[in-house]
Amino acid sequence: MRTGESVLSRAIRIFDAFSPDEKVLQVSEIARRTGLHIATASRLIAELVSHGLLERGPDREVRVGMRMWELASRASLTLSLRDAAMPYLEDLHAVVGHHAQLGVRDGDDVLFLERLTARDAVVNYSRIAGRLPLHISSSGLVLLAYGPPELQERVLARPLEQHTDRTITTAERLRATLAEIRRQGFVVTPGHVHPDAAGVAVPVRDGLQEVVAALSVIVPNDGRAPAQVPALLAAARGVSRSLSASPVVAARR
Amino acid sequence: MRTGESVLSRAIRIFDAFSPDEKVLQVSEIARRTGLHIATASRLIAELVSHGLLERGPDREVRVGMRMWELASRASLTLSLRDAAMPYLEDLHAVVGHHAQLGVRDGDDVLFLERLTARDAVVNYSRIAGRLPLHISSSGLVLLAYGPPELQERVLARPLEQHTDRTITTAERLRATLAEIRRQGFVVTPGHVHPDAAGVAVPVRDGLQEVVAALSVIVPNDGRAPAQVPALLAAARGVSRSLSASPVVAARR
Repeated sequence: MRTGESVLSRAIRIFDAFSPDEKVLQVSEIARRTGLHIATASRLIAELVSHGLLERGPDREVRVGMRMWELASRASLTLSLRDAAMPYLEDLHAVVGHHAQLGVRDGDDVLFLERLTARDAVVNYSRIAGRLPLHISSSGLVLLAYGPPELQERVLARPLEQHTDRTITTAERLRATLAEIRRQGFVVTPGHVHPDAAGVAVPVRDGLQEVVAALSVIVPNDGRAPAQVPALLAAARGVSRSLSASPVVAARR
Repeated sequence: MRTGESVLSRAIRIFDAFSPDEKVLQVSEIARRTGLHIATASRLIAELVSHGLLERGPDREVRVGMRMWELASRASLTLSLRDAAMPYLEDLHAVVGHHAQLGVRDGDDVLFLERLTARDAVVNYSRIAGRLPLHISSSGLVLLAYGPPELQERVLARPLEQHTDRTITTAERLRATLAEIRRQGFVVTPGHVHPDAAGVAVPVRDGLQEVVAALSVIVPNDGRAPAQVPALLAAARGVSRSLSASPVVAARR
């Protein structure tokens, strides 16, 4: 069973044991979470540490290493999209305040590549490299609305997780919302993720006019969220222009 | 030889084959760069693709996958430092324009965790997850000046790579510069990396007063770079305060 396949799978399980709230774990805890025997986990962790993919802290606890981040980031197309979007995200953030975010679809989730946050911003559940199911947030709804029909049918066919009493939880309401997004080109989600916050999201298109990302802002849920739509639409146009200028990113998906 | 060790090592060699300028590679090119047999490279690439750590493009060419970025980023202390610094880096960028950067030492290099760039900024060689030898740039010099004595002796003892005719290339000048940095708490490097650009860098300390990063700006090489020092020092104090409030980051190194 000591094949190449199983070593990589187990290494991935080890990285999966960490989360934004648990960035530092004991070896025994990693073994417990991965279901690996403690001896197997220890040996694999030692090798990952020797390569710098994991690091050990002062009390032998383990964390994700800088080298792992470097290998993932240096040649990442994910970061190319983020780089193209960053100047516009900054402008948006400067104008709107609160949170400005860039999200992409990965499977049935939105994965947030970047979030700029004002120090006194309204509450927000997303974070960098964080995920949310597509139907929950404004970014996810935009990515779902412009996603493949089979994705929409899959999401519409199953129970929809609820975050607040405003979250979309019925197929009927979700279907109507997706149609509305395609018609008007944006979505506002007052209180869908948290009662105090409203999301506003618009699609970002690549050089081939395909939707490759969602730009969003999170503002207080005070009824004024729709005022952010023009700034978001303008920023999304800027990002699309940058993407058209760098075809390697446009070729993504 | 099909041990767990060699599988991981080979997987790392594959990721190392990519660079910011070559984000998309053919399998044959990966085999050539890694020195792996084409069959071995193909098999390992297929497994990395099956886990989402690599992705295939339309012509079967290979690139780093979004999943790799997610595993590396989600629980990264590297990104925690970057998150603590980000609001201050944005403020700095808004005030100074051009480039604002956050760098950490990794071995004998400075590794840039973040760079904010104005659309019309002066030329700059650093990039996210990019590296430069410590003696070349303002950030590297700061990290070297506050680094362990054995690191300084190691760097001082060997030939110093030259980028421009202003780059520090003698041990004598490097030693004097490091002493000056420790005395004044910042460094200005006019034309050291590129003739048209000047770097200004200051140390960022954690809650234990250890230097854990360098904040820097890159501005035109017109003699006015020293005017940026007060804004940089103020931003570095802000980052230090954020780091003191989150001890897990302060425990790093």
